[in-house]
This record gives sequence, structure tokens and C-alpha cells, in this order.
Amino acid sequence: MVDHMNARILLNPNEVPKEWVNILPDLPSPMTPLINPMDGKPAPFEMACAIFPKELVLQEVSQEPTITIPNELREIYARTYRPSPLHRALGLEKAIGIEGEDIKIFYKNESLSPTGSHKPNTALAQAYYAKKEGIEELVTETGAGQWGSGLAYGCSLFDINCIVYMVRASFLQKPGRKILMRAYDAEVHASPSKLTEAGKQFYDKNPDHPGSLGIAISEAVEHSLRNDKARYSLGSVVNFVLLHQTIEGQEAKIQLKKAGIEKPDIIIGCMGGGSNFGGLAIPFARDLLQGISTDIEIIGVEPRACPSVCKGEYRWDFGDTAKKAPIVKMHTLGHTFIPSPIHAGGLRYHGIAPIISILANNNIITPVMHHQTEVIESGLKFANAEGILPAPECAHAIKEVIDQALIAKENNEKKIILFNFSGHGFFDLLAYKEFMTGNLVDYELPTSEIQKALDSPEMPNIDESQF
Amino acid sequence: MVDHMNARILLNPNEVPKEWVNILPDLPSPMTPLINPMDGKPAPFEMACAIFPKELVLQEVSQEPTITIPNELREIYARTYRPSPLHRALGLEKAIGIEGEDIKIFYKNESLSPTGSHKPNTALAQAYYAKKEGIEELVTETGAGQWGSGLAYGCSLFDINCIVYMVRASFLQKPGRKILMRAYDAEVHASPSKLTEAGKQFYDKNPDHPGSLGIAISEAVEHSLRNDKARYSLGSVVNFVLLHQTIEGQEAKIQLKKAGIEKPDIIIGCMGGGSNFGGLAIPFARDLLQGISTDIEIIGVEPRACPSVCKGEYRWDFGDTAKKAPIVKMHTLGHTFIPSPIHAGGLRYHGIAPIISILANNNIITPVMHHQTEVIESGLKFANAEGILPAPECAHAIKEVIDQALIAKENNEKKIILFNFSGHGFFDLLAYKEFMTGNLVDYELPTSEIQKALDSPEMPNIDESQF
Repeated sequence: MVDHMNARILLNPNEVPKEWVNILPDLPSPMTPLINPMDGKPAPFEMACAIFPKELVLQEVSQEPTITIPNELREIYARTYRPSPLHRALGLEKAIGIEGEDIKIFYKNESLSPTGSHKPNTALAQAYYAKKEGIEELVTETGAGQWGSGLAYGCSLFDINCIVYMVRASFLQKPGRKILMRAYDAEVHASPSKLTEAGKQFYDKNPDHPGSLGIAISEAVEHSLRNDKARYSLGSVVNFVLLHQTIEGQEAKIQLKKAGIEKPDIIIGCMGGGSNFGGLAIPFARDLLQGISTDIEIIGVEPRACPSVCKGEYRWDFGDTAKKAPIVKMHTLGHTFIPSPIHAGGLRYHGIAPIISILANNNIITPVMHHQTEVIESGLKFANAEGILPAPECAHAIKEVIDQALIAKENNEKKIILFNFSGHGFFDLLAYKEFMTGNLVDYELPTSEIQKALDSPEMPNIDESQF
Repeated sequence: MVDHMNARILLNPNEVPKEWVNILPDLPSPMTPLINPMDGKPAPFEMACAIFPKELVLQEVSQEPTITIPNELREIYARTYRPSPLHRALGLEKAIGIEGEDIKIFYKNESLSPTGSHKPNTALAQAYYAKKEGIEELVTETGAGQWGSGLAYGCSLFDINCIVYMVRASFLQKPGRKILMRAYDAEVHASPSKLTEAGKQFYDKNPDHPGSLGIAISEAVEHSLRNDKARYSLGSVVNFVLLHQTIEGQEAKIQLKKAGIEKPDIIIGCMGGGSNFGGLAIPFARDLLQGISTDIEIIGVEPRACPSVCKGEYRWDFGDTAKKAPIVKMHTLGHTFIPSPIHAGGLRYHGIAPIISILANNNIITPVMHHQTEVIESGLKFANAEGILPAPECAHAIKEVIDQALIAKENNEKKIILFNFSGHGFFDLLAYKEFMTGNLVDYELPTSEIQKALDSPEMPNIDESQF
């Protein structure tokens, strides 16, 4: 018999994990370095510290299996929104006809943070270290605005200046998140802007240029390098961001144990840069790599319009359009690739976290992809059944969850499915409106497009034997 | 020394209260009945049951001091979002310069429900009883959409048809909440519509009529009376709604005890129809009335543009414009009164809950009023300090909280201040934008306007000696 009174598993604020899980020492193949785009050599420590706060640069390459979460930061997590709840999705189970005890769906609810997504997990950490190092300003880019509002929130709590370059198409179409960022006292600029060299190249030719994440990154990096009290801040992709997000998976482990579950059989998350997915999956992936667990299938879901891991190539590529940010080795669709305008703005990035790439190369995780109409349809089903409207990004995970649950049912298998509910959809209602009125369209990425974007990188010679 | 790790006080899902607190038997003067608008006599039981589900009609007049929350409903509260957290507002305390242990501010965070406000507390209860009684459809009105989305959510969980008449001005200006309601499968109509007699009077003259809550109520009542499997649903004002909301105050009591606090000195909430305010205040007000507690100041905050209790008259008045809904005795600005277009749509109602009126008449609660610019400014201060952006309604409470805290500081007093954070402002960002760009204006309600609206009621003769 299902126990409804214990279907939502809470932890006390003082159960916020005391450390982050660093997967680097356990990776089946070694982590590749960040490369200086000027000379093709690993970025020296001092160079990296001109871009990011020093403590984050150290975390980026740390080989310690865990990294202590500073007490002051733990206190802030605890008094604001962490640990997040783990829900048994009883409503969804009923709605898709798998009621019972054989197949159970759980979700980690990251939508209850002040900005409505998992992004503050790393934003608070980055703002904390910046403040501690005397940095007065953090500069970043944002697409739909989930990351920008997360960082603006973090900076506001630590009284740090926050500058956000927001892709112009979103700046114009999604005024909500822009106002939210300004409410946190952030300065928000439409990108491409005329404030940077990287932006001006595009702005001068077309002041209405819709922009891209790649251009906005270039602008943010350039802006941050101008002021020695400023640093650049990134909301996904790099190792330290995924590190901070592992707070999710660690909490989920404790919560599943409280529900009497030793381990999930399937873990699912959506993948853009890879941070919400990695945050939930990494603590479990490490158990697999260390032989502590077996038989956990970890599935990352990409949009068919931007399937970096499913269809991209694993290679060195620039992180941004103007080639100002470090070069990384990752699955990529090419740094000049401009994805189709799907609603899941957070999944429209040409690359992915190198950690995720290495895990995919070693079959620890499996990438899949879905179209946005089936995704948004699944999101609506979830909203009706569970009451919470998912962000379009998160609805990608839900589509796969439903598929996996129905496969298990058909095969008469017992399965525990865990997924990351990375954020709510209150700022993304247009996607649902378009679906409900029959106006939502799908975008498939033709292989020829991928090849074209990959063919144009002007990449410096990178000699891996020298690392 | 402030304990940050225990600044957010959670309860377990199985600590959801087992009963609601009914203040009717303890009121210092007796509750007045709902009056039939046709003949001026108390509405007979059968008539009330044609409008509302029967169990709610019984709750409306119950003299039991507590009413048991059905187990199935408790389970739904528990597996979705209740109990809600109680936060110590350490960030706000610091921001306004009252750091320390003398003055402490706590808030009950109702913004974490799936629709972002306290409204689901009663929506779930109403949908539960409707389902149990075989009712297939609930019809309601909504202004800005907080109540409409709350009921749409409740109906979606219980698989009940939901029809919402939404004030046209909001229907056009706030597409977000409309889409959210539709995502929950509700049918949403702009009001005045041509679907009802009450709406047609206005629609035929002007299809672009901006509408009012009074007109939308008339439409919803009329629509519900057409179908004997349908009932009308109300999100505030009536006794049973305030009853359901007392879950808030009961939880807050337990949470304060956990924080080592016997009782708050000041309780603050914003007042529109009175449900979020009553929900937090009633369990404490009952303690005052029973002599269990003393020295609790309970303050309800109204907008200066619609100060029903501060400036209205305590008298019989219609609940709606077309005089289809029952007549109630309450503080009112007159049922023909159309409030100025302030952003706190949830506070734009001409009347208030009769329970609140009686408590105000007996000095158990104190009404105050504030202008919207000072209110939104306080909301921004809160967002920066605590990270959560309040709805404009809720920001009214915050303005008063800051004022009270500063008065206590000036007087060197020790005070525990508790307030209701009734909802987030993600759907109300325009108010913040207007404030930040200097475009937000204040509306003062001239006394002459009030007199005019009160002078036109065409009220049937009501003989109170006959009750």
C-alpha cells in the first residue's frame, strides 16, 4: 500500500551536505585541461585566475575526491531553500497507468529555489568565493535567463555587482526574467551590445541582431577582463559548476534511503551544458565507477534541435563565438552553430560539460533526444498530474521518464526511476500556449548542418602529448 | 548568537494539522448569516446548497470549535507542499539595521505551493468536497488570476471540470496566469462575456469592457446555477475559506515553538477578501479571545486605493455587481465601487470577510493602509535581502513589517514579528518594472467616492431581529 503521508521526503536544513563530490579522480579517462585560445596550450594558473575567482580555478582541477562546503555557505543554503524535497510522483504514476509498487518514479524538486531552478546552487557558491576574494563584480551571459537570474540572486545576497549579457532575442521576448534580474539589482544588457569589441562586430552591422549564447559569452568574458576587481562567471559546462551541483545527488541518496530504497535503477535529467544532470547523476556515477553500485542506467536527454552528445563530435572546440573563452574538449556541434529557436533556451548550447563527455564516452551515461512537441506534451501531463508546471528544459527529462516507465511496465520489470525536476515553467508559458493552440513546431538538426559548423573552427594546434 | 542552520523551520509532512480552527463559536459578536438577495431573508440551507457543495455550507455555519481535515485531503496536502516553511528573515533584519536578538522577523512562506500562493489551501479542500459529493464542475471568478490558478490546480488533481471568469483587463494584461489555468485544463473566459445574462448587459454595450471582480462573480454564480452537477467556488471572504486557511496559523504556532518562541508580539498580513490574513491570524486571535494569550497585536494591511476596513462602512452589502450572490454584513466600499488599477489585483475587492469585520469591530485586529509605491519599494528591499520576490499583495504586509520593526527599534522594545508571505511575484513583474522606471503611481480613494458607491445599493429590507 502506497504511503501518501511519506511521499514527499524532506531533509532538515542541518542535513545540507558538508562536501561536494568531485568526480575528477574517478573518471575512467583523465580530464582534459582548459586551453588558452591564443596559443593552444593549457591555460596557465594566473591566466585562469584572471578569468575566474582563484578558489574556483583550484576546484576546476582538484583531484581531491570531495571538497568541503564552507560553513558560511552551508548556512546560506540551509536558511534559504536547501535541501530540496524529493517527491514520489504518485500523480504521474496514476496518470500513466503504472500505479503500484513495481515501478516508482521520484523527482528531486529544484524548482523551489528563489529563482525557480537549480542554478542558485552554484550561483551562491560562486558569489561566496568571489566575495571572500575581494572581487566586486561578476559578469556573465544568459540565454532565457535562468542562469542570469540565479547569479543576480547570488550576487544580491553577497552584495556583489552583477552584469548580465542576455541574448537579445530572449531580452526582447522574455521580459519577465530581465525584470527579475533587475529586481536583484543586476545590470542587464541585450547582446550583441555596443559595450564590447566582441559585441560591436555584430551590433554595428545590425543593431537588432538576435544574438546567441556564444556571442554573449564572448561579451561577458571581455567585459570581465577589463576590471581587475571583476571576474567572469559561468552557469554550466565547467567542472566546478558540476561540482557545486552534486549537492543534489547527495541529498537524493539520503532521501531515497529514507524511503527504503538502496539505489535507483534509472536516473534521468535534461542536458544543456550538463549541470543539473551532472549534479544529480555524479554521486551515483561515482558509485558505479568505484564498484560500490551496479546496474544504474543514467540517461541524459537532449533536444533534437541541439543534440550535442547524440550527434556532435568529441573534439576540442571554442566555448564561445569570438574565441575569447578557453577551448575545451567536449561533444560539440561547432562553436558557430546557432540552434533553432526551441523554447528550452537552457538546452541551446553547442557543447556540453567535459565531465559529461567523458562519462558518455565510457558508457556511464547514455544520451537520448526528443522533439519539443512531445516534450511539452509530457510537461503538460506532468502539470495536470502533479500540479507543478515544468520548465521546457525539465520537460525533456519528463518525456524520457514516461517512456522508461511504460517500457518497464510492458516488460513487467520492477524499476525505481529518479529524475531531476530542474525548474518550473512560470517564465516559459509561451511554449505551453503554442502547444495548446497547435502552433508548436519541431526542429530536427540535419547532419549536414553539424558538419558545416564543425568545419569552421580556426582551431590552434593543440598537442595533447604535452599536457 | 543567531543560529543560521535553524533559521528556516520545517515540519514533516505528517505534521500537517489534523483539523481546521473554527473561530465562529469564539467570536465576540455573533456571525451574521448569508442573506438571499431576492427577499432579504437568511438564505435557506437548500438554496445555499444549490450554490456551494453541501459540506462547505455546513462548515459556513458550524459552531464546532474545530473541524477535522479528512484523511485523504491531509494526504494530498502532505504529498504536495504542506506544511509550508517558516523563515527567520535574517536577510531583511540585516538590511533594515535591526540585526540581533531583540527584534525578530519570521515569515510563513506560502509561495512554495504549485501555483505560488496560499490559494491552493482552500482550492484543494473545495475540490475534495465537490468530488466527494459527485459535483462535476466548479465555476469561479478571478482578478489577477491567483485564485483562478489555485482552483484550476485543485480541480485538475481531483479531475473536476473548472470554469473561470477572469476580469477582462487582467485577461488581456496578464496572459501568464491565463495560460497556467489552461495548462491545468481549466476553461477561462474574459469577463464580462456574452455567456451569461449578467455579463451580456455589459458586453453588448461594450465588448471591450475591462470588467470587475463584482461582474465576474455575478457571471460565475449564474453559470454554476445552470447545471445541477456544477457549483460555485469562492477563493476568499466566506467563513469556510478562512477556515481552510487556518492551517497556516496552526503550523506557524508549532514552528515558533520549535524556535523557542511562546507567541509572536505582532502578526501582519495583507487583506483583500481576508483569507491569507485570516488563515495566519485566526488561531492566534482565538487564543486572545479565549484568554489563553494576551498582548498580540494583529495588523491587516490594505491598499490606500481600496481600504475596505480602514475607510468602508460596516453594513449589509451585495457581494457582486449583478446582485446574484448572497448579501453579507461586512466592511464595504459599496458593491458598485470599481477600485483604481493597482497591481495588487488580489486586494481590489469592495468588501472583506465578515469574520475579519467582526474581529476589527472588536479591536482584535487593527487595519492599516499603504500606498503602492512604498509597498513595491518594500517588496524590492525584501527581494534583495531575502532573495524571494513578493507578489504586490504580499508586499503590503512587508511594508508594515518594516515600519513596525523600525518603531520597535526606536523604542528599544523586544518584538517578535510574524507575517504571512502569501505569494511570489513572478506573474506580477510589471509592477516592479514600473517602480524601477519611475512610472508607478499612487491612488488615494477620496471619501466622496466611497459615499457615492455606498449610496446606491438598492438593498432589500433586512430585519436582523428575525435571525
